[in-house]
Amino acid sequence: MDFESYIRDIEDFPKPGVMFKDITPLLKDPLALTKACDALMKSLNGLKIDKVVGVDSRGFIFAPMLAAKLDAGFIPVRKKGKLPYETISESYELEYGTDVLEMHTDAIQKGDRVLVHDDVLATGGTASAVCKLVEQLGGEVIQCNFLIQLTFLKGADKLNGYPIESLLKY
Amino acid sequence: MDFESYIRDIEDFPKPGVMFKDITPLLKDPLALTKACDALMKSLNGLKIDKVVGVDSRGFIFAPMLAAKLDAGFIPVRKKGKLPYETISESYELEYGTDVLEMHTDAIQKGDRVLVHDDVLATGGTASAVCKLVEQLGGEVIQCNFLIQLTFLKGADKLNGYPIESLLKY
Repeated sequence: MDFESYIRDIEDFPKPGVMFKDITPLLKDPLALTKACDALMKSLNGLKIDKVVGVDSRGFIFAPMLAAKLDAGFIPVRKKGKLPYETISESYELEYGTDVLEMHTDAIQKGDRVLVHDDVLATGGTASAVCKLVEQLGGEVIQCNFLIQLTFLKGADKLNGYPIESLLKY
Repeated sequence: MDFESYIRDIEDFPKPGVMFKDITPLLKDPLALTKACDALMKSLNGLKIDKVVGVDSRGFIFAPMLAAKLDAGFIPVRKKGKLPYETISESYELEYGTDVLEMHTDAIQKGDRVLVHDDVLATGGTASAVCKLVEQLGGEVIQCNFLIQLTFLKGADKLNGYPIESLLKY
């Protein structure tokens, strides 16, 4: 399927000079929605996964679907203060300053095989922080997958050593 | 399935005096995750649905799964400024002040049969605003469904006339 035809370019969003890749046309199309999920599944090539970690909020769209198909649990990672139970945290760099991601302390068990999912791999700061959260709890990151990889931002360099898969590369 | 045993009570979250219903134990359990989705599907009783609207961010967890099962599209509703394309908006009341929800102008087509999904029905302000967004674009709200309905907050009163289904009531 030509997934690229379901991605809309939005100029100057969220700020001037940025070309935003809008995935909502893909989500709105029933066939593209299920085919994108199938393609992410295929890239796992039958690997056994215990937990799928999705990053708030667009990572929540495909991660639970993947979890259901993999007979795995879904684990949300959220910004500081959003998760209600005891958490561990990792900070990551933004263009200006830092931000903090949290995961529940009971989210991952030692030895869990984990898939990390987000909609877009940009600079890799978020995904790298999520991998550290998984490893803090003794989990093993089996793959990081994304709908879109913005290769010019070199996010893959920050995920050195983790298998990366993405439906679309720009 | 006894879904209630997968919901964790968190005292004083997000603020003193509130007992928060934490759904993450349900999400983490592969069987509970899929059974919860199946139960929401069953409550639709075979109704034809064109679009499933999910509310940022915990509504994004089940809405796309439901959309995939219904052969429908998934439509995200988000807080002001988060959606990249042209939007319509509805404001809704908070305890102090108001907030604004947005939906893309091309999300719904006239005559679309729409399922509105969120994790929790509390005061009904959010869900009611989402229904208004759907109707602004000419869609018909066929059902509003939720994992949890906090009946003592009387959210159903604000959704007068819309069929409501929820897995768990408190």
